[in-house]
Amino acid sequence: MLPEPLLWTEEGLSLLDQRRLPLAVERCLCRTVEEVARAIEVMVVRGAPAIGVAAAYGMALAARERRSLPEASARLGATRPTAVNLFWALARMEKASAGEGDPFARLLAEAKAIHEEDIASNRSLGRHGQSLLPRKATVVTHCNAGALATAGYGTALGILRAAVEAGKLVTVFADETRPRLQGSLLTAWELLQDGFDVTVIADGMSGALMRSRPVDAVIVGADRIAANGDTANKIGTYNLALVAARHNVPFYVAAPLSTVDVSLLSGEAIPIEERDGEELRFAGGERLLPVEFPVWNPAFDVTPAELISAIVTETGVLRPPFGSALRAALSGEAFPKKGV
Amino acid sequence: MLPEPLLWTEEGLSLLDQRRLPLAVERCLCRTVEEVARAIEVMVVRGAPAIGVAAAYGMALAARERRSLPEASARLGATRPTAVNLFWALARMEKASAGEGDPFARLLAEAKAIHEEDIASNRSLGRHGQSLLPRKATVVTHCNAGALATAGYGTALGILRAAVEAGKLVTVFADETRPRLQGSLLTAWELLQDGFDVTVIADGMSGALMRSRPVDAVIVGADRIAANGDTANKIGTYNLALVAARHNVPFYVAAPLSTVDVSLLSGEAIPIEERDGEELRFAGGERLLPVEFPVWNPAFDVTPAELISAIVTETGVLRPPFGSALRAALSGEAFPKKGV
Repeated sequence: MLPEPLLWTEEGLSLLDQRRLPLAVERCLCRTVEEVARAIEVMVVRGAPAIGVAAAYGMALAARERRSLPEASARLGATRPTAVNLFWALARMEKASAGEGDPFARLLAEAKAIHEEDIASNRSLGRHGQSLLPRKATVVTHCNAGALATAGYGTALGILRAAVEAGKLVTVFADETRPRLQGSLLTAWELLQDGFDVTVIADGMSGALMRSRPVDAVIVGADRIAANGDTANKIGTYNLALVAARHNVPFYVAAPLSTVDVSLLSGEAIPIEERDGEELRFAGGERLLPVEFPVWNPAFDVTPAELISAIVTETGVLRPPFGSALRAALSGEAFPKKGV
Repeated sequence: MLPEPLLWTEEGLSLLDQRRLPLAVERCLCRTVEEVARAIEVMVVRGAPAIGVAAAYGMALAARERRSLPEASARLGATRPTAVNLFWALARMEKASAGEGDPFARLLAEAKAIHEEDIASNRSLGRHGQSLLPRKATVVTHCNAGALATAGYGTALGILRAAVEAGKLVTVFADETRPRLQGSLLTAWELLQDGFDVTVIADGMSGALMRSRPVDAVIVGADRIAANGDTANKIGTYNLALVAARHNVPFYVAAPLSTVDVSLLSGEAIPIEERDGEELRFAGGERLLPVEFPVWNPAFDVTPAELISAIVTETGVLRPPFGSALRAALSGEAFPKKGV
């Protein structure tokens, strides 16, 4: 069984330390809001939804410490300035702080609600998505869109969990996902804990894999989805989509509707973060290349909508054309725009 | 300037130690045939043509030591049993050993001839191949088909060298090439020594690269080419070919005619070596994953002929349909069948 990535205890917020997985499985107990802020900064916890939940518990700890809540919120908000779920969670906690009775009890209840809602949303997404898989399914995934990136069930990996809960037999191949290796370090570990048949491959092996055996689906997460369905996700996703298209393997994107950014007409408008080249000059903790070696390190790429077979959300499975499908799914949606 | 990968000196065979590049640039002097055999075994020198040349010098050293030449040949032949160039070189040295006068002088001359012929063949291939590139060319390559894998000029990278010698401006993006990282550790280093503008990317970034800027060609080496042009090369080549096809980027294979195996009708018949999974559980010298993590580690993949724009050989540029083009190029060929 996968240990709970985020767990509230009497003493405080217990986080599964994601920095040293899978070689060391350790937990980190945060007793104060400052400890939560530091855990987010040093990436004990990562993944936008997971960061939002951690910050919410951080606000509850601030109340228990009788610290200034606006100051605590500012401290948490300064940890990972691009994680939009973080600000959405902090705004919700601020609202909850205005009320009667013990502020700690109120904020703790709100943090637990945010936590549970994220899991419930993932479970709903998973149930919709698992209907796309046959009774015996071989699936390729990329990066980590799992329990370790969310409050505890996952989006892409949530679909795999829901398929197993529905009695299906699931075989997984996980792209290791250079440069940060979230596929081998996190996805493979997470799925092994839950008893999955999972095999790690290098990112360049998906084509050889699909030539050597039948694959039923590729399932990936998303960092941002444009109004037309073009999807930004971890670098390497687009290459995998091209390989899947060549082999007529359905390519599914699993993402909550909060990932859709209707302000962007197409993927061309999605800004792509370029990260420090040192990530490519290292693997794990070891330096491979001298610092002066030129590298290019975009963190995300964009998969055009025409390569995507379906977008799986918490409200159902969307099919092309995605422009109208996304508009319909979003109309009447109570979800705040979170982006990422 | 790139240091000579293989250099004969008065003392013996001086090899550039490829195991610790690029962080440490060291040479390894082999004074005896046993030292050459060990250098091949521990991969001080790698790449089938380079191994063949090293073994030839090893036979010359055996003659200088007045060792039994058949025993020396057996010792060298046992180092890397799948490197067919090795056996071809040893057979040539055996022939040369039967003659008049000082055996050491005769064998040293033969080893130098093998060395020079390989470089001359690469240079000829490079001249033919560079004609495919515009005056200002951006090229993506995979793995290391360079001076470090051959006797000193390279096949895919030989084309880039020839383009620069022809006055062209060449910008290179090198796939790092997981799991063994020959692209970042060897290709990038080798090209930087020769003053190239080279940038390392992760294998999953080639699609994002081709979306973000114009690329004129992909050039890769080959481990074996079937009679119909299907090409086995380092794992990840096929994915790169699919990305190039999507972006209408010409995909060139650079390989001496000795790489063609006419006994294989198509790529389906090319045996694909699966290597130890530990290669994927490590990066450089660091363990990433526990030994019990399941991995799949094919060393090569097959790119179907229909994705290949041209095969560049030492006798000229071959265009599809490759079946007849390869037959024509091979007829009248004096090359021994080396394979691999």
